[in-house]
Amino acid sequence: MIDLLKRLFPICRSITGDGVRETLAVLRERLSALTIHEIPSGTRVFDWTVPDEWNIRGARLTGPDGEIIADFADSNLHVVGYSEPTDRVLSLEELQAHLHSRPDMPEAVPYVTSYYARRWGFCLAHKQREKLKPGLYHAKIDATLAPGSLTYGELLIPGKERQEIFLSTYICHPSMANNELSGPVVMTEIAQWLLSKPRRFSYRIVYGPETIGAITYLSRNVDTLKERVIAGFNLTCMGDDRAWSYLPSRKGSTLADRAALHVLKHFHPDFISYTFLDRQSDERQYCAPGIDLPFCSVMRTKYGSYPEYHTSLDNFDVVTEKGLQGGYILIRRCLEALEANNVYASEILCEPQMGKRGLYSTLSRVESTNGYTTNMMNMLAYIDGRTPLLDIADTIGLDIFQCAGMAEILLEKQIIRQ
Amino acid sequence: MIDLLKRLFPICRSITGDGVRETLAVLRERLSALTIHEIPSGTRVFDWTVPDEWNIRGARLTGPDGEIIADFADSNLHVVGYSEPTDRVLSLEELQAHLHSRPDMPEAVPYVTSYYARRWGFCLAHKQREKLKPGLYHAKIDATLAPGSLTYGELLIPGKERQEIFLSTYICHPSMANNELSGPVVMTEIAQWLLSKPRRFSYRIVYGPETIGAITYLSRNVDTLKERVIAGFNLTCMGDDRAWSYLPSRKGSTLADRAALHVLKHFHPDFISYTFLDRQSDERQYCAPGIDLPFCSVMRTKYGSYPEYHTSLDNFDVVTEKGLQGGYILIRRCLEALEANNVYASEILCEPQMGKRGLYSTLSRVESTNGYTTNMMNMLAYIDGRTPLLDIADTIGLDIFQCAGMAEILLEKQIIRQ
Amino acid sequence: MIDLLKRLFPICRSITGDGVRETLAVLRERLSALTIHEIPSGTRVFDWTVPDEWNIRGARLTGPDGEIIADFADSNLHVVGYSEPTDRVLSLEELQAHLHSRPDMPEAVPYVTSYYARRWGFCLAHKQREKLKPGLYHAKIDATLAPGSLTYGELLIPGKERQEIFLSTYICHPSMANNELSGPVVMTEIAQWLLSKPRRFSYRIVYGPETIGAITYLSRNVDTLKERVIAGFNLTCMGDDRAWSYLPSRKGSTLADRAALHVLKHFHPDFISYTFLDRQSDERQYCAPGIDLPFCSVMRTKYGSYPEYHTSLDNFDVVTEKGLQGGYILIRRCLEALEANNVYASEILCEPQMGKRGLYSTLSRVESTNGYTTNMMNMLAYIDGRTPLLDIADTIGLDIFQCAGMAEILLEKQIIRQ
Repeated sequence: MIDLLKRLFPICRSITGDGVRETLAVLRERLSALTIHEIPSGTRVFDWTVPDEWNIRGARLTGPDGEIIADFADSNLHVVGYSEPTDRVLSLEELQAHLHSRPDMPEAVPYVTSYYARRWGFCLAHKQREKLKPGLYHAKIDATLAPGSLTYGELLIPGKERQEIFLSTYICHPSMANNELSGPVVMTEIAQWLLSKPRRFSYRIVYGPETIGAITYLSRNVDTLKERVIAGFNLTCMGDDRAWSYLPSRKGSTLADRAALHVLKHFHPDFISYTFLDRQSDERQYCAPGIDLPFCSVMRTKYGSYPEYHTSLDNFDVVTEKGLQGGYILIRRCLEALEANNVYASEILCEPQMGKRGLYSTLSRVESTNGYTTNMMNMLAYIDGRTPLLDIADTIGLDIFQCAGMAEILLEKQIIRQ
Repeated sequence: MIDLLKRLFPICRSITGDGVRETLAVLRERLSALTIHEIPSGTRVFDWTVPDEWNIRGARLTGPDGEIIADFADSNLHVVGYSEPTDRVLSLEELQAHLHSRPDMPEAVPYVTSYYARRWGFCLAHKQREKLKPGLYHAKIDATLAPGSLTYGELLIPGKERQEIFLSTYICHPSMANNELSGPVVMTEIAQWLLSKPRRFSYRIVYGPETIGAITYLSRNVDTLKERVIAGFNLTCMGDDRAWSYLPSRKGSTLADRAALHVLKHFHPDFISYTFLDRQSDERQYCAPGIDLPFCSVMRTKYGSYPEYHTSLDNFDVVTEKGLQGGYILIRRCLEALEANNVYASEILCEPQMGKRGLYSTLSRVESTNGYTTNMMNMLAYIDGRTPLLDIADTIGLDIFQCAGMAEILLEKQIIRQ
Repeated sequence: MIDLLKRLFPICRSITGDGVRETLAVLRERLSALTIHEIPSGTRVFDWTVPDEWNIRGARLTGPDGEIIADFADSNLHVVGYSEPTDRVLSLEELQAHLHSRPDMPEAVPYVTSYYARRWGFCLAHKQREKLKPGLYHAKIDATLAPGSLTYGELLIPGKERQEIFLSTYICHPSMANNELSGPVVMTEIAQWLLSKPRRFSYRIVYGPETIGAITYLSRNVDTLKERVIAGFNLTCMGDDRAWSYLPSRKGSTLADRAALHVLKHFHPDFISYTFLDRQSDERQYCAPGIDLPFCSVMRTKYGSYPEYHTSLDNFDVVTEKGLQGGYILIRRCLEALEANNVYASEILCEPQMGKRGLYSTLSRVESTNGYTTNMMNMLAYIDGRTPLLDIADTIGLDIFQCAGMAEILLEKQIIRQ
């Protein structure tokens, strides 16, 4: 995963433009069924309008002595996202209104955008900014802001059931590793794993720009999503190895939340639990009133809660293969938990006689009770033809994978049926 | 308010009689629409009967040497409420059965009544009682106990809606400041404030004697109250500045309780929370099974929980203008919270684009998120056409007045509708 | 009770056989209406089959020098329950597979059974086992394992109502005092008490072998039980004086649970609360999915949680008359709580005037409020024609017997009706 991430890292993504297309083209090498959608600028999507497309070829800020202050070629973070084209000479005083830096993080180049108001600007390390001397500066941004389209990728993986699990990630941030490239990278690994064998549920995977992409996607698919989606997850901030995090859906107790909490409690009990008030990503749209999808986020370290967030320091010191693997396994376990979340009924009234089936010690001694037998009898005590396995697992204090293993044996012995 | 309280203080109120009428006459100077009701003695009200009317002109207990032990002219607390007329000479031994004092509060004259069994008696400081010497005492009470009527005042303030908020207070206690005069005094200030402009809800304000007055009022109005009242408050113990208190309705989660708790949690988070088992006032009737009004009490220091309660020490050392102002603002905020408790729906699916309406920074930087914008987006995330603003405010951790202010802006921008 | 327990102690009970019959015959001396049921071996009961009947006349393990190692005549625990007949000479090495002892409790003879797989074996103190020397041993068990029947006793006590309270205990363990003889002994005392006067509910009392007995009983009576039983209790481990314990029903909030918790909280607030996952007795059957009886256990020290459990040390050092009395009173209080759990309605709207009925002080002074009056007014405040007395008692913080006493008075004064 880290190799894919490094390959995607230099591409200058924004909410529209060729950077998005190039990113999707790389992903399509791995996911041939990925469909690319182009939505024309000006298209009305609920309260919003798809903006003009932004493309940038280069940008450079040159100082009084001709020295290069900031160059797009070095890092795409140096240019304010959606900067309008400019080619001006101006004094340091005039320039300051177009500069962005973080006094609290003097080494970092901050990530700044101005999608919906025409501006131009350069971002640089505060340390460097403080050294700028009076004089005339040349700001040149070779970009275009013109009608075009918004691009997103969609992958539908049909399963045995028509009910869907919805996975969404975003591809609108330039060179930053945890937020956001870890999301699409883990998503791609998950998609390949999902495609590796037939699944119970259908899967809907979307790669689009954050906010405007989610709103655009919803404006075209909301009825289908509301009809089919039983659980959804936002894949973001999946790549560092410092924490495990959960941000609930608006309602807080959807199937997605229950699966996420089950996996986190069993495998990462020290996870950080946020509230819906801490949201800043696409659950804002997917959980909006009237949309109300069962959609939550499970993350490594949450956006906004680590110092490198939205700066040039969100790089490969932050994101590691180990971090990405952790994120991948976390999401995979959530999906496996959902796939395993069957409802079973007993074929038998009262306890089955386990001994005659070799599932219980025939010799009754105080010391012959073992944990496995106890777990199996506990699971049977709650199999009632109504309660999903996830809830039974929570009740008897096991993880759903242990329960699913035991259910296999009980199915085989015809003690229970699905 | 303290001036009104001082004017009402000397009047000898009881559950019936001219003291009640005189009190209502003073209040009517401020509230010209106050209607006075007279219910004849002997009227059956549920399980009770309106008692004979008690009026007292004077009373004096004179000692063996002609010295005055207790005189109604000094304090109406000296006479047991509803004392029958008497004019007797009796020994100290005989007299003792007619004397009331508080050994635990030797300086205080206690407040004692005997409404439903014929008695007579004098109340005095225990310190004084201990000094009484043997000899003949002359007890004279110039009072009448005869058919008459029970008097209560009622003020109906029509609002835009027919739904009512019910405010009740009592006027049956003689010279005591917190319990009870603070109640009718704050009620009068509230009534004047309510009358100062048109209101959303209708208001029903009742001044009557405690218990028998509430039962009488209910016996005549229960169907109307059950049909119209959405929330009610008991105004009692509103005038000291030592504590904030809440006593719930019997069901504990009515709209009245939710408004009261919201206001107390936000503005007086150190409030004392009692249970319905601590009740001793008119919620006993208004919340009785089969009556079941949504009715609770918000108070300063609760009756029964301060040492001066029901003694001559419940005076102007206890009740202050500052204390009364606090009580008034507390009740007013509860009413304002109810008036503001609208249900809003969004005009827009997904998040509205706030930037184009000047409600969101168009420049996206880590440091550009501010609390106000976050609050507004949080509020919008819960505006779903069903959830009242009070519940939304509780969910997002703001007070309803902050929410109402933001709702005004969103209404104006046509993002939401009522 | 301790005398009955001592009389039953030496009998060799198992899940079938003459020991069960002899035990029931002793109980029938006290409960002449006890009906004995015999269910033939081979009868299918849900997933199980009634096993062959086991009877034993004697058993002895003799050592190389002719010394007696273990003799059934000394303690029936020396023989593995359901041992097949044997008469073999074998080496110590061969013998070891047939011996059972507890290294962790070297003085105790453990209790071991093998109901559903043919085996034979001897149980002995580990201390003794360690001293066994090489040589030839003679193992002789004079027992029969042959078609016969499973025996259980049933006592139906009709009450005023057809609704039933179901009490179950088991009689399949040989010489152990707390688990199990305390159960049938306390049950017999309870049955005699129930028969001593007419009762509101009908009572169904069952003495049978654990597990197979409960399953057999259910297979024959499940529809009747599901229709009639409003609460049930498992009587086990009722005889030591070391703890009070509660093990809930599967659903955890049935009427049986509420009565048990009410009694325990009021009379033994230091009780130990187990979960349904700690069950090991007949709630496994009575609370199984599809059976779902409102059935829980209240105990002294729970099976499996005291060191002497299932060994020869579970004797009269563990169980005492005081312990049994505690168990008896605990169960009796649960039943009395259910009998007292009426629904009352008030004859009166608002508070009744208690003073005119002599139930309230006619003199109102701060110090005249007393606990009894407050309790009665609190109870009245929740009597609404719907809420059972048990719930009212929990709400107002009294035990149901205090409430029932007050309800008697209020009924007599015609303030409430049933």
